[in-house]
Amino acid sequence: MSRNLQIVLDRRPTTLPIEQDFVEREGEIPEAGPGQVLVRTLIVSIEPAMRGWILDAPNYLPPVPVGSPMRSFGVGEVVTSNLEGFRAGDLVVGFTGWQEWATMNEPEIQRRIDPDLAPISTSLGVLGVTGLTAYVGMIDIGRPGPGSTVLVTSAAGAVGSAAGQLAALRGARVVGLTGSGDKCRQCIEYFGFDAAINYREEDDLAEAIRRECPDGVDVFFDSVGGATFDAALENLNVGARVAICGTISLPPDGKAVGPRIERRILVKRISIQGFLATDHFDRFDQIIAEMSVWLRNRKVRHLEEMAPSLTDAPAALVRLLEGRNMGKSLVRVSDRYQKDLS
Amino acid sequence: MSRNLQIVLDRRPTTLPIEQDFVEREGEIPEAGPGQVLVRTLIVSIEPAMRGWILDAPNYLPPVPVGSPMRSFGVGEVVTSNLEGFRAGDLVVGFTGWQEWATMNEPEIQRRIDPDLAPISTSLGVLGVTGLTAYVGMIDIGRPGPGSTVLVTSAAGAVGSAAGQLAALRGARVVGLTGSGDKCRQCIEYFGFDAAINYREEDDLAEAIRRECPDGVDVFFDSVGGATFDAALENLNVGARVAICGTISLPPDGKAVGPRIERRILVKRISIQGFLATDHFDRFDQIIAEMSVWLRNRKVRHLEEMAPSLTDAPAALVRLLEGRNMGKSLVRVSDRYQKDLS
Repeated sequence: MSRNLQIVLDRRPTTLPIEQDFVEREGEIPEAGPGQVLVRTLIVSIEPAMRGWILDAPNYLPPVPVGSPMRSFGVGEVVTSNLEGFRAGDLVVGFTGWQEWATMNEPEIQRRIDPDLAPISTSLGVLGVTGLTAYVGMIDIGRPGPGSTVLVTSAAGAVGSAAGQLAALRGARVVGLTGSGDKCRQCIEYFGFDAAINYREEDDLAEAIRRECPDGVDVFFDSVGGATFDAALENLNVGARVAICGTISLPPDGKAVGPRIERRILVKRISIQGFLATDHFDRFDQIIAEMSVWLRNRKVRHLEEMAPSLTDAPAALVRLLEGRNMGKSLVRVSDRYQKDLS
Repeated sequence: MSRNLQIVLDRRPTTLPIEQDFVEREGEIPEAGPGQVLVRTLIVSIEPAMRGWILDAPNYLPPVPVGSPMRSFGVGEVVTSNLEGFRAGDLVVGFTGWQEWATMNEPEIQRRIDPDLAPISTSLGVLGVTGLTAYVGMIDIGRPGPGSTVLVTSAAGAVGSAAGQLAALRGARVVGLTGSGDKCRQCIEYFGFDAAINYREEDDLAEAIRRECPDGVDVFFDSVGGATFDAALENLNVGARVAICGTISLPPDGKAVGPRIERRILVKRISIQGFLATDHFDRFDQIIAEMSVWLRNRKVRHLEEMAPSLTDAPAALVRLLEGRNMGKSLVRVSDRYQKDLS
C-alpha cells in the first residue's frame, strides 16, 4: 500500500492527444492535510473536454501542468478525512485525477454519493456531470416541447444520448447525428430516437438534416461545432435555440474560419448559448433526483464501457476522441469497485 | 386631391441601394376597402432594415416587389375608415409605404397614437419601433446592471443611442462605437455615454475596445456584425450577452466568412440572441409607457433629422446607409404635419 500509480501528462499535444503524451509514474500515497480528504480512487471518467484541458489554449480551466497527473473526475472512497462532513467509507465524486490515491480539498469534491441508489459508475455519467450537461443544455436552454424537432450531435455518446432522451420525454421529435451505422441503430433502437444520420455517409450534411427534419430544427444540441454546426444552422427554424457544450471538431487555437452567422441569427431570431455543467453544480441535487427517477423507470437509458485498469486511461481517451466508444467511457482504478457493486 | 405621389422601387440593388434604384410615380388615391382605413401619410421613417427589405435574399419579410411603393413605417391621419375602432382624424403608425396616401388593413396598422403625449415624430423613433428595439435588445436580452460594461454599435444612431441610455439607466458603464469624432462627442455629451470609440480611426478595433473597456464587456448590443462583431467578441467576459438587431456591415447574400465563434461561445459561456422588434408588438404599450416617462424626465434623450419632402426619401436612405445621418432619420410627407405640431 505504499505506491500511488499515476498517469501523468508527459508532453503537451498541439492537436489531438496520443497515448504517448502520457506516462505512468509511481508516486507516494499522499496524506490528508487540514481540510482535506484522502481517497482511494475507484473509477475515473474519460471525457471529450479532456482534449481542451491539456492544451495550451484559452479555456475555462487552466491547462493541466506537464508532469502532473491528468485532471479527471472520479469516484473515490474516503480513507482519511480532515474535512467536516466527510468520514472514512464515504463515496465521493470529484477531481481525483488519473491516480490511485488522491487528496481533495472541499472545492475539488463535487458531492457525496449513495451507492444504494444506483451503480456508482452512474455518478460519473447519466447521474453525474454527463446528466447535468444533458439536462441544462436540453431542458433549460433548448426548451423542447411537443411538436418541436430536436437535433443532437454525438447522439450515441453519453451526453448526446441523454440529451436526446430528455427531448423525447418532453414530446419532441428527436434526430441524432452520429458516426456509424451501428451508432445510428443504437440511437433508434436503444435510446428511442425518431431518426439518426450517419454523417460519415452523407455528402451534403445540410441536405441530410433537411431530409430527416422536414419541418426544420427548433433545438440544436451541439458538442461538435464546425461544418456540423453550419449544416444544422441552415435548417434552423425561426426562434430556434442552440445549446453549445463542446466544439470537438474545431482546432482549439481559435483560428478556424467559417461562414459568418450573424445575419442568420438575426433573420431567424436564433439564440445560441454556450454552457458548462460546472457552472450549474448548485442545481445538481434537483437535476440528479429527476434523472434518477427517469433512470429507474427506464424513461432514460444509458450505456457505458469500462476499461479494466488505470493504465488503460490514455488509450480510452484516444478511443473517445476518435469516436470509437459507445456510451459513457470509464476506467476502473481499484478492485474495490467490484466489491462495492456486489 | 387626385394624385398620390409614390416613391417606387424601380430596380433591385445587389448591394447598397442608390437613389436611382427608386423612381417617382403618380398613382390614384386609393379607396378604403372593407376592413381598411385610408390614411394621408404625414411622416415616413428611414431605417437600416430597408437595405434588407429590397434585396432578393432570405429575410424576415418578403422582398419589396419592383414597381411597388417602398415599404416603410409612417404616421398617417385616417381620412376614411371601414375598420372598427378607427375613425377619421385618428393618427396611426403602420406600414404606409413611401406614398402620400395609403390604405391599410388591420395587420398593417401597428397602433394609434396620441399627439398630445409627445411630438408625433417620436412614434417612429424613440417611442416607436426604435425604442422597442432598444428596450428588447438592451433590457430584456442584454440585462445590464450596476457594474457591468456595455458596448453599443451605431451608438449615435437612433437605436444605439437609446440602447446606450437604457443601459446607463440600469447603472452600467456604457461605451459606444461610432464613425466620426462628432458622433463620439454626441454620444458622450448629449447621450451621456461614458466613452466612445471612432472606429474609423482605429487600426485595431479589438485593442481599442480593450482600452475603453478594461474590465471586459458584459453586454454587446450589435447592429453591425462582421469585423466589429469579431472585435467585440474578443473582449467579452464570461457569461456575456450579445443582442443582434442588425448586420449592416455584412453582404446580405450570407456568403461572408469570418473566424468561427463556437469555441469562444463555449469557453466564455456567451449567449447570442437575434431579435426583431416586430416580434414584440404585444409589449409595445408597456414599453412605450416606460420610455415616455424617461423621455419626459430627460432620462432618455433623442435626436432626429427630418427631410422636407417625400421625394427626398431615397437620398435620406442612402445617407443613412452611409452613416451620415445623426439620430433618427425621418421624411416629412404632408404639410399637415406642421399643423399637427402647432
